[in-house]
Amino acid sequence: MMVTYSQGSREASFAEIERALGFSFSGEIRVGGNYVSVVQDGNDVYVSGQIPRVGDAIVVTGRVGAEVSLAEAQLAAKVCAMRALAVLRQALGTLSRIRKMIRMSVYIQSAEHFTQQSEVADGASEVLLAVLGSAGLHTRTSVGVFQLPKNAAVEIDFIASVD
Amino acid sequence: MMVTYSQGSREASFAEIERALGFSFSGEIRVGGNYVSVVQDGNDVYVSGQIPRVGDAIVVTGRVGAEVSLAEAQLAAKVCAMRALAVLRQALGTLSRIRKMIRMSVYIQSAEHFTQQSEVADGASEVLLAVLGSAGLHTRTSVGVFQLPKNAAVEIDFIASVD
Amino acid sequence: MMVTYSQGSREASFAEIERALGFSFSGEIRVGGNYVSVVQDGNDVYVSGQIPRVGDAIVVTGRVGAEVSLAEAQLAAKVCAMRALAVLRQALGTLSRIRKMIRMSVYIQSAEHFTQQSEVADGASEVLLAVLGSAGLHTRTSVGVFQLPKNAAVEIDFIASVD
Repeated sequence: MMVTYSQGSREASFAEIERALGFSFSGEIRVGGNYVSVVQDGNDVYVSGQIPRVGDAIVVTGRVGAEVSLAEAQLAAKVCAMRALAVLRQALGTLSRIRKMIRMSVYIQSAEHFTQQSEVADGASEVLLAVLGSAGLHTRTSVGVFQLPKNAAVEIDFIASVD
Repeated sequence: MMVTYSQGSREASFAEIERALGFSFSGEIRVGGNYVSVVQDGNDVYVSGQIPRVGDAIVVTGRVGAEVSLAEAQLAAKVCAMRALAVLRQALGTLSRIRKMIRMSVYIQSAEHFTQQSEVADGASEVLLAVLGSAGLHTRTSVGVFQLPKNAAVEIDFIASVD
Repeated sequence: MMVTYSQGSREASFAEIERALGFSFSGEIRVGGNYVSVVQDGNDVYVSGQIPRVGDAIVVTGRVGAEVSLAEAQLAAKVCAMRALAVLRQALGTLSRIRKMIRMSVYIQSAEHFTQQSEVADGASEVLLAVLGSAGLHTRTSVGVFQLPKNAAVEIDFIASVD
């Protein structure tokens, strides 16, 4: 698996991935009234579970290994990771305050017999490395769940350490 | 979604929800011998996964979206959240030592095609806000799993910051 | 459930369980290039999700409650826990730097109607206690997922506090 470490700034890498995916994550990101997207605990920041939502649309729905292909699921994982980074950027003001990614959990709405959850999660890991460089290296847990909110193909949450 | 912020004390709000649910969480809460309900790590407290158990009974069992309705699942989520708060209170001596809820993970034993995991989790989020006020605002991850221990409809764990 | 607290050193207990299981976890443990097995965050160490892999083989595959028995799943859970401890030992240099286990998440690839996820997780909890003594006591969340990477029967991750 090829890993592209960011050469320029994090914001530039983020914008480059936005262009490659054809989606913008620059608008305000809101959640419901009884929980929040981000909580800071000392230097650790927790980000709520993100589905591949862009604006009001969930861009990849369905069951991976059935109506959703591996490539589509990897795209979904990238969108989740970009959205999670966008949420973090909105809370911190800038991506440059991210010191280290700590943990990413990747939930994949899986078809029976689909066993490539790690390969799906690779899509999200690539985004973290491309945007953050070695600070984007993280621990990871990938599991295949039965259903996800709004029939999303993938859901991702993470914990980061910040300055 | 209506959110009731606690007006009086946390204990009073907790007791009010107990009355509304018709369940008491005041007895001692025990777990098996090879793990514990609560571990404190610095100012962070981790609470083990809680199913909707009251005394010896699991009050909501089955698959949400099939034999369990959305309303019943929300009740299950509330019971899980109350039980998790009760566990935390037992460990801390009082609810007032909770400084901030950080992360809640909500696992919903889901029927195929059931996609309202977030709506189920809202039941638990409401409890945290009702008891703790703005300190109860948390990040959240909600997923639909295939099976849960003892056929529970919902399982919840969380991390809190304490004084 | 019988719990054997370690009498001698942690390394001796670890080696004893290796012998009892008939597996060695002493080789180098590698993961893919875009994430890591361990990230340290202050005194906390996060370990990536571990499946029951020994060398290149996944030693227990399939769905627990169908082709995988409870006893086989408990064995899988023990192997996951040993592998996670081996990963931690590799990162820390020694098991004696582990101050406290904090959280273990146990994901069980479950058959429909299988509800003994906690009993499966007991296998992993026993390993932590046997190797680490009271420092191995942890909070725990056990859920039954639909699919796991490489058709593994069990996946486990954890967080530990270290010196």
